[in-house]
Amino acid sequence: MSSVLGNKIRLSVFGESHGEAIGCVIDGLPAGVKLDMEKINKEMARRAPGKDKTSTPRKESDTPIILSGVLNGVTTGAPLAMEIRNSNTQSGDYKNLMTVPRPSHSDYPAYIKYCGNNDIRGGGHFSGRLTAPIVFAGAIAKQILEQKGIKIGSHISRIGNVFDSSFDKNNISSELLNSIVSNTFPVIDTEKESEMRDVIEEARLNTDSVGGAIECAVIGMPVGVGGNMFDTVESRLSAAIFGVPAVKGIEFGLGFDFAGEHASKVNDCYKVEDEKVKLVSNNNGGIIGGMTSGAPIVFKVAIKPTPSIAKPQQSVNLQTMQNETLVIKGRHDPCIVPRAVPVIECVTAFVILDLML
Amino acid sequence: MSSVLGNKIRLSVFGESHGEAIGCVIDGLPAGVKLDMEKINKEMARRAPGKDKTSTPRKESDTPIILSGVLNGVTTGAPLAMEIRNSNTQSGDYKNLMTVPRPSHSDYPAYIKYCGNNDIRGGGHFSGRLTAPIVFAGAIAKQILEQKGIKIGSHISRIGNVFDSSFDKNNISSELLNSIVSNTFPVIDTEKESEMRDVIEEARLNTDSVGGAIECAVIGMPVGVGGNMFDTVESRLSAAIFGVPAVKGIEFGLGFDFAGEHASKVNDCYKVEDEKVKLVSNNNGGIIGGMTSGAPIVFKVAIKPTPSIAKPQQSVNLQTMQNETLVIKGRHDPCIVPRAVPVIECVTAFVILDLML
Amino acid sequence: MSSVLGNKIRLSVFGESHGEAIGCVIDGLPAGVKLDMEKINKEMARRAPGKDKTSTPRKESDTPIILSGVLNGVTTGAPLAMEIRNSNTQSGDYKNLMTVPRPSHSDYPAYIKYCGNNDIRGGGHFSGRLTAPIVFAGAIAKQILEQKGIKIGSHISRIGNVFDSSFDKNNISSELLNSIVSNTFPVIDTEKESEMRDVIEEARLNTDSVGGAIECAVIGMPVGVGGNMFDTVESRLSAAIFGVPAVKGIEFGLGFDFAGEHASKVNDCYKVEDEKVKLVSNNNGGIIGGMTSGAPIVFKVAIKPTPSIAKPQQSVNLQTMQNETLVIKGRHDPCIVPRAVPVIECVTAFVILDLML
Amino acid sequence: MSSVLGNKIRLSVFGESHGEAIGCVIDGLPAGVKLDMEKINKEMARRAPGKDKTSTPRKESDTPIILSGVLNGVTTGAPLAMEIRNSNTQSGDYKNLMTVPRPSHSDYPAYIKYCGNNDIRGGGHFSGRLTAPIVFAGAIAKQILEQKGIKIGSHISRIGNVFDSSFDKNNISSELLNSIVSNTFPVIDTEKESEMRDVIEEARLNTDSVGGAIECAVIGMPVGVGGNMFDTVESRLSAAIFGVPAVKGIEFGLGFDFAGEHASKVNDCYKVEDEKVKLVSNNNGGIIGGMTSGAPIVFKVAIKPTPSIAKPQQSVNLQTMQNETLVIKGRHDPCIVPRAVPVIECVTAFVILDLML
Repeated sequence: MSSVLGNKIRLSVFGESHGEAIGCVIDGLPAGVKLDMEKINKEMARRAPGKDKTSTPRKESDTPIILSGVLNGVTTGAPLAMEIRNSNTQSGDYKNLMTVPRPSHSDYPAYIKYCGNNDIRGGGHFSGRLTAPIVFAGAIAKQILEQKGIKIGSHISRIGNVFDSSFDKNNISSELLNSIVSNTFPVIDTEKESEMRDVIEEARLNTDSVGGAIECAVIGMPVGVGGNMFDTVESRLSAAIFGVPAVKGIEFGLGFDFAGEHASKVNDCYKVEDEKVKLVSNNNGGIIGGMTSGAPIVFKVAIKPTPSIAKPQQSVNLQTMQNETLVIKGRHDPCIVPRAVPVIECVTAFVILDLML
Repeated sequence: MSSVLGNKIRLSVFGESHGEAIGCVIDGLPAGVKLDMEKINKEMARRAPGKDKTSTPRKESDTPIILSGVLNGVTTGAPLAMEIRNSNTQSGDYKNLMTVPRPSHSDYPAYIKYCGNNDIRGGGHFSGRLTAPIVFAGAIAKQILEQKGIKIGSHISRIGNVFDSSFDKNNISSELLNSIVSNTFPVIDTEKESEMRDVIEEARLNTDSVGGAIECAVIGMPVGVGGNMFDTVESRLSAAIFGVPAVKGIEFGLGFDFAGEHASKVNDCYKVEDEKVKLVSNNNGGIIGGMTSGAPIVFKVAIKPTPSIAKPQQSVNLQTMQNETLVIKGRHDPCIVPRAVPVIECVTAFVILDLML
Repeated sequence: MSSVLGNKIRLSVFGESHGEAIGCVIDGLPAGVKLDMEKINKEMARRAPGKDKTSTPRKESDTPIILSGVLNGVTTGAPLAMEIRNSNTQSGDYKNLMTVPRPSHSDYPAYIKYCGNNDIRGGGHFSGRLTAPIVFAGAIAKQILEQKGIKIGSHISRIGNVFDSSFDKNNISSELLNSIVSNTFPVIDTEKESEMRDVIEEARLNTDSVGGAIECAVIGMPVGVGGNMFDTVESRLSAAIFGVPAVKGIEFGLGFDFAGEHASKVNDCYKVEDEKVKLVSNNNGGIIGGMTSGAPIVFKVAIKPTPSIAKPQQSVNLQTMQNETLVIKGRHDPCIVPRAVPVIECVTAFVILDLML
Repeated sequence: MSSVLGNKIRLSVFGESHGEAIGCVIDGLPAGVKLDMEKINKEMARRAPGKDKTSTPRKESDTPIILSGVLNGVTTGAPLAMEIRNSNTQSGDYKNLMTVPRPSHSDYPAYIKYCGNNDIRGGGHFSGRLTAPIVFAGAIAKQILEQKGIKIGSHISRIGNVFDSSFDKNNISSELLNSIVSNTFPVIDTEKESEMRDVIEEARLNTDSVGGAIECAVIGMPVGVGGNMFDTVESRLSAAIFGVPAVKGIEFGLGFDFAGEHASKVNDCYKVEDEKVKLVSNNNGGIIGGMTSGAPIVFKVAIKPTPSIAKPQQSVNLQTMQNETLVIKGRHDPCIVPRAVPVIECVTAFVILDLML
């Protein structure tokens, strides 16, 4: 298997960056959901490139066309298929990549795996463009979750060496999530935006790219969601989130900072408040024993610098088996982190919905 | 689903810490594999507690009894079932936990999820003891992988604030892996062992526990292993590794350090060497575009301090809905990291074998 | 799950009879397969209606448009998406069905299951039209199987009370399969064609429909294909074939005739021939112990009369909860069996390919 | 995969006829189910051999030992593991089968598939004995279903050429199912018992075996259960039931008799009765469009004569590749149909429960 996600609802993503179309089939979506297309399009616009200098100037027509599963704006219970026709592709830019793989990109392992048959143009099926259908599916999941009182939001927690504030893990308001989600450059500490933009602009001017991190939160979760052992909330979320290109790490709650801590300091104790069980702290990021604890789910994701840069790089010619210097043409993102924010949220929404059905 | 792992081989783990037995069924194992029981037992001994003061003095009889799937020491192709009978359980120690959940432990979410029917004694099915069958299955996977020239090893990369050296990601020898695997306290920089032991001993004397991190490597992988999008090597490994209790983070290659880097510095370039394509560096930890690059797979795992400590902790009584101070009795690990090392290796071995079948 | 088939290759079918489009995504198809579009279109033409009086005069534009996964006519290894745009739909015909379900059709259970949100026009996602994407996927599978020396063919074994000859189970030639596959009305005993057509024509003139049966064979299978217990060739084929609308029974080899037999007469003995093990008979239809025996796979499928007939029928109004006489308008098939023949073959091809990857 | 069944609850069966033990793990069973061990044992006794001359005189110790997942007789939500220790095995009887496969038995394809590593003694993992864990799992499923008002029962509908009456498909009482289930030789028309026993006894005296058929019914199903397309109730049931050794056919409702019928006669019309929608007839066997219609689920299963007979049979020596006459020793069933009755019911119960969770 591969480009398929989910157990009870199943998302099957298709398409190649420079092919006819990209899209997805969502099988198992509940019937009777009234789709708010405006919200879906807004979510897709968050991911789309070309808005400012932090992303590629390439314009993508991200208009989803629904082919099935929806009648008069309401889901029918049949598989929902969606396609986005490709356009504005400059395939000529990719000719030399056929034989000279881009460093840190899927080109070389894909060439070996598919015996050279993979569509390398724009990264083919490995392109970040394929996150558009994921956002589409996640936007629908978000709508259904909101009706259950569950909200998801995330912010840029780091660009290069500029850090945003972190979520106050045990106290994340719906208002905060609304506010960061509506921001094109979502940070908690708004003063950090210009610093971060400077780092990105500097990378762009250097024909380079820079990495970062995203922190995501899910509020409103009931207690006890998530399976045993290999089907924990952490297992499900991590498996899906590593499906987003450029993700190289994930940590829940304190994550790697747990390594330096003692239980007496970081254990999340309980208290009774308003006749309900509450957590005194949320160092576990809302997941204990693989199940939700009732506190917000909070996790961080590491994003590597986009590997496609215009600087000359050392590579090899797979035909001649000679070293070769590669200069990548085309239009690329100096930093993918801002555009990855809605993708992380949407893949999270899809997984959470799948867990709750 | 839940305590089930794998696509082509399927591991189904069963048992509760203080029940009759724990064990597993492995369905889909190739026929004709001659099991080296000595190696399997050695692997299980690495995980077993009671060896020294870094772990609980509790003795566990970790003798696996094979019930099916093996004839004259060779796999038959039928499901391989294994059980370990439980003994030396002191269930009396857990009586008060039925109503007063241990902080940061599965107790509370499991109580809600299973409406109070879960077996809470020793953590029940959520107990770290359930990693014994995982080690058993992974030990078999290791044997099969070794015949394909694939080797797995890991070391304690951090205990509290003591750090071991990291793997030289692009140059990990079979000898190094052999040497750390044969060590009961596996570190690369052997001088760090006593420092780390001191941190653990201090936690033990304080009736506390301390966290840490493990770095794991897989060498000998062919290029191009791993599926598209949601079925990447990272997705598969992370989903399985979050099934190990106390794991709270995972990062591949540079992981979270990618956030501060530029592509021009961290992209893994290619070169021709001995008429083969080689990577100049391995910042991606052996996985590019979700597929193996041919360089060693290298990842780090964050382990939280074991939540069961003897110090009094604030909790609630779920029957009376009153705050209550909890004092946990029983014998516990002041640091689970050394015992988690073979578990991380074995779950990795199982996933890698599953990917390669 | 639902409209998803397969383990190693996964077919996800979408669409509704009167929606925008129908189609499918095939995930996991091997890279490097050169598609013979002419063969695929020929297979789809076999299923298409409107060729003669045995089927509905409704014309369907069954032109598959490939959206992804194919570059220069060769599969890339990425998911292959295909769509067929709907046209020539007369949705007005279906208005009264919204509240008055057609007897023996999916309408009523779907209405309950989907709380009235299902698209009932033309049967929606339950329409026989959705077998077009299955034929497309199976036609590709057939091509790949033929390169492995595996061939699939089937014939109409019964229409009403007219019976065709059965396959000589242990001796089915490639020529015979070629000959029946190239026939628009595939029978072994060609004299039966006119008799069968008469039965269908009589049903048509009576505004009625008639049932039948199909016998399918797969030749060239190696020995030992198929999993244990719940993953037998019979399990896999039956699960997929009951996905074809109107199928109500399946039997392998002697099938229900085994009930009247003794082992001494029907056991399939072995002999050595040309230094190979051969079966003396093939009463088990090529599957023994759930695995292929090397003899042809042979099975029969029962097809019920298409439930949509123009005769007035007793039904209920789900809004008013009153009895109501229903008269179904629209254009329907007096016998679906001839059109079901390529569908049975193609779903078989897909399952066999999935088993062999 | 293979000896694994189910989506939401997952049954993993293990064991070999003459190995240490057989058993199963049931993952995903709801917590809080109070197991009625007496009922479970009664169900297992129905399947056990040695009760009379219709089955092998071999005694099997079918006492299930629960290893996990149950505390104080109530399910905990953790995987439920069960084992049955093997005893009374006469492995010496099977020595010659290692190289000379029994006709119509799994021996030959399994030998090829597993390269001669499979445990052939008693059929190994392919033995009918492996239906004992299925009955155990199904007996639990039956209990849970009964609390939802769903009841399952079946009868021997044919032995050789003696036929029992069929269920009145649209009118099956709970009393009738209770009465046949409590009968060791379950038939509707009790006069047929002695005739059927005569046929079996004749086969036994001839060192032969005879086939038959079983009809199974499920009453109390709600409307609209079952997935779309490849996940229909028929798909799920057939896939599971072909996992029972010796099953060679399945038909729902009229099944193969639909082939000779017209829609005007066999369509299941609707009527309003007691302000509810009812079916006028139930020719579809309770499943329409792949979903339950509310009428009883009714299907028939074809069972071939047990292939193990004492008569000399023609086979081959796989070592010497010479023809060889085989005489099978050991104790065998002259007719497996009576013992298969509870197995069919139990596998049905498991599938229905899985569909309804």
